Amino acid sequence: MRIEAGSRLLMIGDSVTDCGRAHPVGEGLFDALGKGYVAYVSGLLDLRYPERRIRVTNMGTSGHTVRDLAARWTRDVLDLAPDWLSVLIGINDVWRQFDLPLQVEQHVPPEEYEATLDALAAAASPTLKGLVLMAPFYLEPNPRDAMRARMDEYGQAVRRVAERHGAIFVDTQARFDAFLAHWYPASIAWDRVHPNTTGHLLLARAFLDAVEYEWT
Amino acid sequence: MRIEAGSRLLMIGDSVTDCGRAHPVGEGLFDALGKGYVAYVSGLLDLRYPERRIRVTNMGTSGHTVRDLAARWTRDVLDLAPDWLSVLIGINDVWRQFDLPLQVEQHVPPEEYEATLDALAAAASPTLKGLVLMAPFYLEPNPRDAMRARMDEYGQAVRRVAERHGAIFVDTQARFDAFLAHWYPASIAWDRVHPNTTGHLLLARAFLDAVEYEWT
Amino acid sequence: MRIEAGSRLLMIGDSVTDCGRAHPVGEGLFDALGKGYVAYVSGLLDLRYPERRIRVTNMGTSGHTVRDLAARWTRDVLDLAPDWLSVLIGINDVWRQFDLPLQVEQHVPPEEYEATLDALAAAASPTLKGLVLMAPFYLEPNPRDAMRARMDEYGQAVRRVAERHGAIFVDTQARFDAFLAHWYPASIAWDRVHPNTTGHLLLARAFLDAVEYEWT
Amino acid sequence: MRIEAGSRLLMIGDSVTDCGRAHPVGEGLFDALGKGYVAYVSGLLDLRYPERRIRVTNMGTSGHTVRDLAARWTRDVLDLAPDWLSVLIGINDVWRQFDLPLQVEQHVPPEEYEATLDALAAAASPTLKGLVLMAPFYLEPNPRDAMRARMDEYGQAVRRVAERHGAIFVDTQARFDAFLAHWYPASIAWDRVHPNTTGHLLLARAFLDAVEYEWT
Amino acid sequence: MRIEAGSRLLMIGDSVTDCGRAHPVGEGLFDALGKGYVAYVSGLLDLRYPERRIRVTNMGTSGHTVRDLAARWTRDVLDLAPDWLSVLIGINDVWRQFDLPLQVEQHVPPEEYEATLDALAAAASPTLKGLVLMAPFYLEPNPRDAMRARMDEYGQAVRRVAERHGAIFVDTQARFDAFLAHWYPASIAWDRVHPNTTGHLLLARAFLDAVEYEWT
Amino acid sequence: MRIEAGSRLLMIGDSVTDCGRAHPVGEGLFDALGKGYVAYVSGLLDLRYPERRIRVTNMGTSGHTVRDLAARWTRDVLDLAPDWLSVLIGINDVWRQFDLPLQVEQHVPPEEYEATLDALAAAASPTLKGLVLMAPFYLEPNPRDAMRARMDEYGQAVRRVAERHGAIFVDTQARFDAFLAHWYPASIAWDRVHPNTTGHLLLARAFLDAVEYEWT
Amino acid sequence: MRIEAGSRLLMIGDSVTDCGRAHPVGEGLFDALGKGYVAYVSGLLDLRYPERRIRVTNMGTSGHTVRDLAARWTRDVLDLAPDWLSVLIGINDVWRQFDLPLQVEQHVPPEEYEATLDALAAAASPTLKGLVLMAPFYLEPNPRDAMRARMDEYGQAVRRVAERHGAIFVDTQARFDAFLAHWYPASIAWDRVHPNTTGHLLLARAFLDAVEYEWT
Amino acid sequence: MRIEAGSRLLMIGDSVTDCGRAHPVGEGLFDALGKGYVAYVSGLLDLRYPERRIRVTNMGTSGHTVRDLAARWTRDVLDLAPDWLSVLIGINDVWRQFDLPLQVEQHVPPEEYEATLDALAAAASPTLKGLVLMAPFYLEPNPRDAMRARMDEYGQAVRRVAERHGAIFVDTQARFDAFLAHWYPASIAWDRVHPNTTGHLLLARAFLDAVEYEWT
Repeated sequence: MRIEAGSRLLMIGDSVTDCGRAHPVGEGLFDALGKGYVAYVSGLLDLRYPERRIRVTNMGTSGHTVRDLAARWTRDVLDLAPDWLSVLIGINDVWRQFDLPLQVEQHVPPEEYEATLDALAAAASPTLKGLVLMAPFYLEPNPRDAMRARMDEYGQAVRRVAERHGAIFVDTQARFDAFLAHWYPASIAWDRVHPNTTGHLLLARAFLDAVEYEWT
Repeated sequence: MRIEAGSRLLMIGDSVTDCGRAHPVGEGLFDALGKGYVAYVSGLLDLRYPERRIRVTNMGTSGHTVRDLAARWTRDVLDLAPDWLSVLIGINDVWRQFDLPLQVEQHVPPEEYEATLDALAAAASPTLKGLVLMAPFYLEPNPRDAMRARMDEYGQAVRRVAERHGAIFVDTQARFDAFLAHWYPASIAWDRVHPNTTGHLLLARAFLDAVEYEWT
Repeated sequence: MRIEAGSRLLMIGDSVTDCGRAHPVGEGLFDALGKGYVAYVSGLLDLRYPERRIRVTNMGTSGHTVRDLAARWTRDVLDLAPDWLSVLIGINDVWRQFDLPLQVEQHVPPEEYEATLDALAAAASPTLKGLVLMAPFYLEPNPRDAMRARMDEYGQAVRRVAERHGAIFVDTQARFDAFLAHWYPASIAWDRVHPNTTGHLLLARAFLDAVEYEWT
Repeated sequence: MRIEAGSRLLMIGDSVTDCGRAHPVGEGLFDALGKGYVAYVSGLLDLRYPERRIRVTNMGTSGHTVRDLAARWTRDVLDLAPDWLSVLIGINDVWRQFDLPLQVEQHVPPEEYEATLDALAAAASPTLKGLVLMAPFYLEPNPRDAMRARMDEYGQAVRRVAERHGAIFVDTQARFDAFLAHWYPASIAWDRVHPNTTGHLLLARAFLDAVEYEWT
Repeated sequence: MRIEAGSRLLMIGDSVTDCGRAHPVGEGLFDALGKGYVAYVSGLLDLRYPERRIRVTNMGTSGHTVRDLAARWTRDVLDLAPDWLSVLIGINDVWRQFDLPLQVEQHVPPEEYEATLDALAAAASPTLKGLVLMAPFYLEPNPRDAMRARMDEYGQAVRRVAERHGAIFVDTQARFDAFLAHWYPASIAWDRVHPNTTGHLLLARAFLDAVEYEWT
Repeated sequence: MRIEAGSRLLMIGDSVTDCGRAHPVGEGLFDALGKGYVAYVSGLLDLRYPERRIRVTNMGTSGHTVRDLAARWTRDVLDLAPDWLSVLIGINDVWRQFDLPLQVEQHVPPEEYEATLDALAAAASPTLKGLVLMAPFYLEPNPRDAMRARMDEYGQAVRRVAERHGAIFVDTQARFDAFLAHWYPASIAWDRVHPNTTGHLLLARAFLDAVEYEWT
Repeated sequence: MRIEAGSRLLMIGDSVTDCGRAHPVGEGLFDALGKGYVAYVSGLLDLRYPERRIRVTNMGTSGHTVRDLAARWTRDVLDLAPDWLSVLIGINDVWRQFDLPLQVEQHVPPEEYEATLDALAAAASPTLKGLVLMAPFYLEPNPRDAMRARMDEYGQAVRRVAERHGAIFVDTQARFDAFLAHWYPASIAWDRVHPNTTGHLLLARAFLDAVEYEWT
Repeated sequence: MRIEAGSRLLMIGDSVTDCGRAHPVGEGLFDALGKGYVAYVSGLLDLRYPERRIRVTNMGTSGHTVRDLAARWTRDVLDLAPDWLSVLIGINDVWRQFDLPLQVEQHVPPEEYEATLDALAAAASPTLKGLVLMAPFYLEPNPRDAMRARMDEYGQAVRRVAERHGAIFVDTQARFDAFLAHWYPASIAWDRVHPNTTGHLLLARAFLDAVEYEWT
């Protein structure tokens, strides 16, 4: 498994990451890591690699886009000096284009999205041992659905940013697609965005596979 | 407009109809009609035909299927002796097949759905002046989506029941499809089931058109 | 219908407009438009003219008089750069004269009311494509009732301001009077000020008629 | 003052009487008498006639009509064996005819109202030392207002019942009319039914004058 | 009655005056005058002298001593420019000496009490038409009780201040003593400080008698 | 110390005993013994005599009189088969005579009080190893105060009952009197009935002294 | 993996199993499976074996002992006809012996524990395809700690019952011990009983390993 | 008893001291001293030495370490000018090393702990009549338990600081150890840190013994 003993892993994103974490800094007692994939990643790391003592911090904030991440990047990422960083952002960047189509100032267009994410990766990379970029996803299996197609564009942008920075890319959408071949989206998320426990376990597994977690 | 002066119009269904109505009987002071299409139907009838003094009662109950309606048909419909009756049921009958696919005892299969609705229509018809059957809908524009296709089956069943009983059929799905040609579903319902104010106004308009409401 | 495709329509006023809208700006997800006539106007525009994509913003604030509107006109109207603007103000200007007759500093006398409204219209007009001024109303059918008579004075002032600025005048009081010929005021508002759903639908219809909405 | 030392005075009615009293029996510690005219009557009796030790019980229940009083007359009046009884009922009997005009089963027509009140007075009178019947009122000074005119009919019925039983009649409406000659109704009740502290003090004074309370 | 038409009467004090009044200024809609003697004074003035239109403002604040009144005298009294002023202060000045005897910084000794009250009276008097000073009271009938004896000292101080300024002195303690000759203190106040409705009616009557209210 | 190892001590009474204990049976986790003297007795027994493992159960119920105790004596005392029993009752028996003097059915006169307490002691004694009767008290140092004098009568009745049954009598009033020689009653109880922590520690000490607790 | 396609897996226990599940039956929408290991088991089964469609039901109830399970075994296990059953019980059976040592009626001694668990296994086995018995645990690494030693006894009893019924035994304590070799107990549970997310993931992994889940 | 008449005793610490005390200063009405050992100390002092009138102030704050105490020492100790001071700090200094082992910035190492406590004692001593230093404790009887062993180190540091400053040292751990010889830790604290009433009485007794309280 690639995350070294003694590392600090910071995971940032939107409401899928946040999940009720402690603010302003998501670590400490009593569900401070939130109730989603971040807590699962932390727990599974501790169970399998108890001697590595990896410190996980959840810096997700509900409703945020990559634009919001940029505004708090120094305080919420750089100042905390993580060794590993994972980013899962973009869902709101796309969603607002579809649920609030007329409030254009809330939309983050793909060019801005990719450029911003690129800049954030560049700013963080020098001091990181590992960077993981997770694609935003939409729990809609039909690739011709307008919002799904748009989300795929953003996912491709994440893939390109990852390649440019030598980061690990996690194709969360592909993972969900495999699952949705068997189950209808409503069984894990009525709104096709906020997954239930099963969906968060999927995200945790996707992340852990990407860092070469040994399951057995 | 077909609803006669002095009529009592009872509207029954699930959460789309309920919308926070008064219980056990949905009429009276303070939002007793709920905050959805039933209140809009009542208000628009009063504004355009104030002299007809049509009494509207909301008997929707959240989460209900046609099976639940059958269990309370005598008390909640027949005993209240409406002149006109509208029924909008079936969404949960279908939804549970997709969000809780393993809890089969909560699924109402199409044969049972149609037979039950037919029996309810038969029981109510003799004393009614008018019966309106509204198709269940799903705010998903892709006709090949599994749940949408299933919902369409149930909508066809409603159409057949309406024909057998000489009832007015309201094709709510067709109305929503026309709207969804311009707007993405998430703009009126994150879960593609519970519409916002715009969606409820659409339902009210669909119902009123069906009873030949004169808009001007 | 006179509101052009792509327009932004801002509706401002007091509690009748506010109805629980989002603050500081009344647009976005989850009933951000409030639960009154503004949401109905927006929904009915979208249903009938889905391709026009008219953006509606609710800037009503409970308890406000025209004096309060003046204090926030730049931030809450001019800065948002609407194409169309509707104003429904004056109820509190009058009401406080009757329910708190001794707290004279809370009363807005008719001269100040008309002058202020005139100034607000003048400030906004240059950049507007359309201005709609709605008369304040009182759900009291007796024209000799003291507060009703006073409200009529203020309604006349609105009419004069509309004429001076070439604005559309909406005679809400006349609309309600027609309705009250058939129904007693208590059936839509115990306090004769805050209407129920029926009253808000009346306001929405009055506004839409004024902008030549095509109902069929 | 006519209420004898050691008497128990029971005051029954609707929400104007109830005012948050203790249930099931309105007496005891901590605002058990409610926060309206009943508590004022009790307090003023105690202050002026401390040695008479008159026990006051509040049996008002919000929303009730004379029909509801009949249903609980034995338990809530006769079983408590009062020496003096006051009744203030009829507002809801009339109000429902105006705010819920179509829910006719909630209306108590004048004949039923008078007959029921008469029967209640007859049932209670044999064991009473004094019976006080207070007219229902409506805080609307215009005698041609439909609901006010209706309320006056019911007030006349109370007067007739009082005469038939030798009871004391309290013309609450006349009292309020005198006050409303100076103040607009909204200054004491937005809904023209539930008065503020001033209105409750008026009711207390009207009752006390009727039993010949010595103010000085 | 001595309070002239059009006067503003400001009543200031501690929790006995406050009684849940609106803050920062105790007047307006919805129990803004609190639920105690101030509201009763206002209501009884309006009922008996409706044409005088006397404006009452409640500026009591729970827990305050005369020292706290001094700190807010300009803002809460002088700036509001009352015509008549009533002051009921001193209970907490004494009470803290007995329930928190060791927290001496919370005690206001009699010399400071009298001097401060004198200064407040002096500051307000020039612009007043009438000043009413109400003695603090303790609902303990035993004059040798330590706290009662102390409270009597403070009451005497109020009397002296009143005499020096030609103010009206209201001997609330004497009023309560007369009542307590018939009723045990616990029947109006478990803590012997915060009276129930009966006690507040007593205070209102005491004030009104002092300003020569005509009860009949 | 007289309470034997392995004993069950049941303490019953009114709100002074209850103090928020668990219902229906006052023992178990999380403040099940309440927050008053019963918990202190239990804790102090455990600290000084940890090896005796004395089980304490709190069966106090707020508002109760000896009449209420009689109604639940079998279920709440006899069925629980205590070895030691303490009773602290009578405060409400007396208090209601003073705070609700007219609601005579809530008063327990001294004869009934003594006879009932005697019968309860007789019913419990045969199976007890020890019975402790605690006098009701009133935190009023003036022996001529009417309620204090009445409470003293009830305390004397407890003393007589204790003598008749060979029970241990705890003179709580004498204990409080000694304390009140130094502190004013308001410093431990505004209502002179419900003591603060200091007062509950006094009660615990009084009980423990009576059973010959060794403090050192 | 041993659980067959189409199976129903019922998991029963105490608060560690319950975790806020739906009552009376723990399955359905919105965290109906609770927020602990049961939801993780269900999610991980669905992710790895989506085509098996295994239905999981959570029947844990906070505070329960094996005695409580016996009382509801027919309704909560047999009537639901599971194919697979897991039981995790005994923590409260032991805990009450240590936190409430004197309330002996709440203690379940080891003989009763083993006999009851044996009887429950016997009653359920005939219709099961698989039975999993999980040992109760205590997050205390010191084997000589009194409660830990006692818990180990109960764990041995579970092992014996499993052997007698050919059931799968899950040694949860051994799993936790391995983890506690690296982390202090307080890092996963302040009370050494209710684990955090990490501890629940451990339980889920232990169960899944026992049924031969393929992690890769 | 060593605390002189008229002294002010200030007790500072963490959540064990705080127990819901009033903020910012822990003294006054209504449980201002919190519900733990501070209130018991105050009460027992008042009961045994009523004439000494010792003023107790609770300045504990939940979650605090010695580092937090240093940050507020001037405002919360020196500015209040106590005569006697007690300090019970260190539990969180140690606990965070075990429940949040990776959040090292929350750990207070032993050197810093002792040096800081020493500095605080030095700063306060010149104006004190008495200083009491209470050892931090852990309700774990096994001396080889890692956190218990660590806590003992901190307790020794307190002992050394006490010796250097001639302060009274209270060995709370030894007291608890004696108790835990008879009772399992879970019977007074599930988390082995926050004791129940019994544990707080133990702390109060330990403190009072240290200042030579005369129990009899």
